[in-house]
Parts: sequence; structure tokens; C-alpha cells
Amino acid sequence: MKIVIVGAGAMGSRFGFMLKQAGQDVALIDGWDKNVEALQKDGIIANYNGEEIQQPIEAYHEDAVDPELKADLLIIFTKAMQLEATLQKTQAYTHNETRVLCLLNGIGYEDILRRYFDEDQIIIGNTMWTAGLEGPGRPKLFGDGSVNLLNLGKSDAAVSGAHEVIDIFNEAGLNGVYEKGIFYLIYKKLCVNGTMNGLCSLLECNMAELGATEANREIVQQLVSEIVAIAQAEDVEMSREEMIAHVEECYNPETIGLHYPSMYQDLIKNNRSTEIDFINGAIADKGKKYGIATPYNDFLTRLIHTKEELLGAK
Amino acid sequence: MKIVIVGAGAMGSRFGFMLKQAGQDVALIDGWDKNVEALQKDGIIANYNGEEIQQPIEAYHEDAVDPELKADLLIIFTKAMQLEATLQKTQAYTHNETRVLCLLNGIGYEDILRRYFDEDQIIIGNTMWTAGLEGPGRPKLFGDGSVNLLNLGKSDAAVSGAHEVIDIFNEAGLNGVYEKGIFYLIYKKLCVNGTMNGLCSLLECNMAELGATEANREIVQQLVSEIVAIAQAEDVEMSREEMIAHVEECYNPETIGLHYPSMYQDLIKNNRSTEIDFINGAIADKGKKYGIATPYNDFLTRLIHTKEELLGAK
Repeated sequence: MKIVIVGAGAMGSRFGFMLKQAGQDVALIDGWDKNVEALQKDGIIANYNGEEIQQPIEAYHEDAVDPELKADLLIIFTKAMQLEATLQKTQAYTHNETRVLCLLNGIGYEDILRRYFDEDQIIIGNTMWTAGLEGPGRPKLFGDGSVNLLNLGKSDAAVSGAHEVIDIFNEAGLNGVYEKGIFYLIYKKLCVNGTMNGLCSLLECNMAELGATEANREIVQQLVSEIVAIAQAEDVEMSREEMIAHVEECYNPETIGLHYPSMYQDLIKNNRSTEIDFINGAIADKGKKYGIATPYNDFLTRLIHTKEELLGAK
Repeated sequence: MKIVIVGAGAMGSRFGFMLKQAGQDVALIDGWDKNVEALQKDGIIANYNGEEIQQPIEAYHEDAVDPELKADLLIIFTKAMQLEATLQKTQAYTHNETRVLCLLNGIGYEDILRRYFDEDQIIIGNTMWTAGLEGPGRPKLFGDGSVNLLNLGKSDAAVSGAHEVIDIFNEAGLNGVYEKGIFYLIYKKLCVNGTMNGLCSLLECNMAELGATEANREIVQQLVSEIVAIAQAEDVEMSREEMIAHVEECYNPETIGLHYPSMYQDLIKNNRSTEIDFINGAIADKGKKYGIATPYNDFLTRLIHTKEELLGAK
């Protein structure tokens, strides 16, 4: 089975590295010139739990993919806002039976996937693995994680396709879990990303600093209430109070509170456009679709876009 | 007639200076030690349209007011959030016939005034005069302006009291105007302050920079729509479209666009608490009272309070 990973940043490199180490036939595709050059020349040089491991790997620039390449399993790790452009290019190296696994942050990307692939080909999930990048081709891979996933289509073929991916992941130590409640997990993660990402980026603080303010409490409650209302409209049962408590765990400086969320890294540190449209923006879009008021998510989305424009983020 | 001005910052000093120059009996009260010392020692030293004019004046620290002092006209120029504390102290030097003129930014302070004075004593207004402060006792007074005002009570005595104030102002060149549509003007000003102040402080930009962003347009429209809805609930007729156009005039870099609003000066430059509760916060409070949804004004209020906490504003 040919596995193609598109988006060879920190997380794509982790999956590529672990699958290749397990003996799979893996190719990486990325749009960052220096990263592709490094991967083609030296392969992945991973800082794997403190040990340096070099792993040669097949790699292509997204604009120079081998025309013979055909993916049996496509794993997508691009940024959410690049998804549409990525999917247009993947048409060249996928076929009618290709399984497409999407592990992006946020929600709303299922609808984009459906425009390019049959529902039975699509597998969605989220992952608890973490990864960093120390330079082109040099991922820093520490700690443990897992991948929860579920076939979007309901056919037997769709179910068995998802289980096949889980088997491959488990052989590679990636800890795949067939998760019927995947949308619950996605919305649960969205409660964190839909509060911490936008607010810490707007106010330029870490999660512990945000959590130490009084005035922030009601903001978080409003944002989470809207997210939970959208989840419930999609038949995902979740408790508002549990989700607020889950978000508030992020404030603890002894666990992850001193962390600056990924959107802060993107916008404030690296001056890049954010994934806000697939987080709070997706909630606002779904709110319009279902006739549910989502003004807090709408306002936060527009504030982040205004800040992107003010900072000239690319 | 004894005129007492409480709050001898830039604007209080302008009114004190012009009234005293016109021969009125004026006393200033302020809480800033150095300012009071300077006023007591040298009086007001005004940079008046480029000419230095020294004007001796009666002045007191707010905690050391002459027990004999009794105001016939009290003009309030403190910051809105200090109003309650100020009014408690003014009880010592006002009487049952004192006229109280309040020229604060924002709305909602009428309800506080009513707790300390009879409605017939209260005059509300707003002013187009500007003023700066170059140091303790040293106002910089350039340009022209006017004062629009209206008695809050409906009695003959209330009406004649307001006209008396206008006469005094006109003798001093302050251009008093009896304005039956005062609440229209107050809400019109609030449309500007309720958008530019909070947004420029949150995003740390001037009005032209804000106006140059695409994503900001819908935010301004939402905030203004809520303000107009509250105004209409109070029988103040205004057009949403006209108010949005009025706000958008602020973006022009050839007029006032390069200006950073007063809240930016307070919070970002001087690390002081803001007047947000009397601007967007007052709209949110009135929204609850009238059953009108005002989530944009509510969210902006809480974001500014969160930022005050993060910055340790005093």
C-alpha cells in the first residue's frame, strides 16, 4: 500500500517517520522548498525522544510530484486554509479507491473533502500526538499520542478501510483507535481551540495569563455555549458545563498554561494567516445554516481577520 | 453665582480658564496632587491659541475642599468611572438649588446623577471643544468649539436653569446651545466612541489603519446597529446607515484618521483603566434592560476589561 502524506511539517514528518520506520512505502509532499530539498537529500533527521535517527524517504515538492505516483492512502496535514488548493493538486496522484485521512484542526473541512472524494473514501480523525520542527527535514518528536478516526461513509468498504488504516497505524506505534464518537472529540477539541487560539492571539498572552483575568470568564462561557449549541444541532451530545471546565483546565501553569496556542505562533510570531475560518468562523457559518445565533464566534473571527490585515499576515 | 468645576484636567481647565477670564467666580477641584499645587501656586498657565496667559484661580484638592464652598453651578469633568466617587464628595459643597452640568463621554451616567440630585437640578450635554494638558496647571487650548446642553427635568425652573448656564457660557465665548435633541447627539457621538475607542485599543492601531481593513467593516456595522437599536428603544430616532457613514468618516487620514482615540491613550499609552463601561458596556446593560440583543457591545466590553487586567491598568 502506497501511503502519501501531503504537508510534511512537524506532524506530517512524525507520521511519515514512524510509518517508514515500520516498513511502509511512504512518500512526503510539501510546498516549502528548503524542507523538500532537505528531505530529498538527507531524508528525515528526527530528534526522536532525544535520539537522532536518520530515515531516508521519498519526497516531492507539491509542484513537482512524480507523475507515476498513486496514493492508496492519502494523509492530509496541510493547514486548513490550504485544504482546497491542496485537494486540487492531489487529484493527480489519487484514484477511485484512495482512502483519504484528514487530521486537521477545526471543523467544516468535511464539506470540502466531499467535493473531491466519495464519502466512502473519506476518513476523519484527530490526533493527540505532538511534534515540532527544528529546521527543514528535522522534526522534534517527543512523548506519546494516539489517533482517533472514523469513516465518513457508512458502507462496509468504508468501515473496513478505516480499520485497515488503524492496523497500519498500530504496527507503526501510532496508536489508532476506531472512534464512533469522533465528532464529539472534534467538538471537544474545538472548544479549546475556539477559545484559547483566538483570544490569546488577539490579546497576545499565554493561556495561564488569560485564565488569570476575571473578565475573560464570561467570554469563554459565551464562545463555548455557541459551539455546544452547534454540536447539538448536529446530534453531537455534549454538556456545556463539562466543556467549560475542560477549557479552564488549559489555564493551569503547571500543565499547559504557559503555552502559546498554535494560532499565536502563526499570527504573532510568524506573521502568517490563521485557521480562524475553520474554528470560530466554521461555527458562525453553521450558525447561519441552522438559524442559531453565534455572535461571539462571529465577532472573534472578524477581529482575528482584522488583525491579520493590520499585521500584513501572509 | 459660584461655579465649581470638578475634574481640572485638560477640559476642566479650559472651562475654568474661559469662565474666569470672563469675570465669573470659579473654583477648580481635582484629585491630582501636582496639578492642584500648580493651580494654587501659579493659577492656570494656558497655551491659549499660541499665546501664554496666566490666570490666577481658586483651586482645591478633592480631599481638602474649603468647608465654606457652596456651588451654584457644578460642572463635572471627571472620568466616567470616577463619577460615583466624585458625586459622594460633591455633597459637601452643593445645596438643593445647585445646577449640575455633566459633560462626560458615553451614556448611562444620567442614572447615577439621579441618585444624588433632583432631576430638575441636572443638565446634560456634550461638547465639541478640545483641550490638551502640557503639564500640571498648563492646559493647551486651541481651536473653536461649542457646548450642547439640555435640562433633564421638565419644570420651568429646570428650563430656565439651563438657559442661565447658556447665557454664562456665551459671555465666556464657550458657545452654549440649548439642544432639545441632546440624546441624538449623545448617541451619535457614542457610535464613534463605541467603535473607534474599543477597536483601536484592542487592535492597537489608529482609525485610518482600522478603516483600511476589510474585515473591520462588518464589525463596525454590527456595533452601530446595536447602538442604534438601543437609541430607538429610548425614542431617539436615528438612521443606522447614516451612523455607519458618520463613523466611516473617521477613517480619513486627511482629517482625523491618524488620531489614536482617547481610550488608546488611556489604556495603551498610559496604562489606565478605560471608560468602556460607559460606552459599549452601557449599551449592553441597556440591552438587558430592554430585551435587545447586544452581543457585539458586550463582547467588546469584556475584551477591553480582559486587556486592562492583562496590562495591569490602574
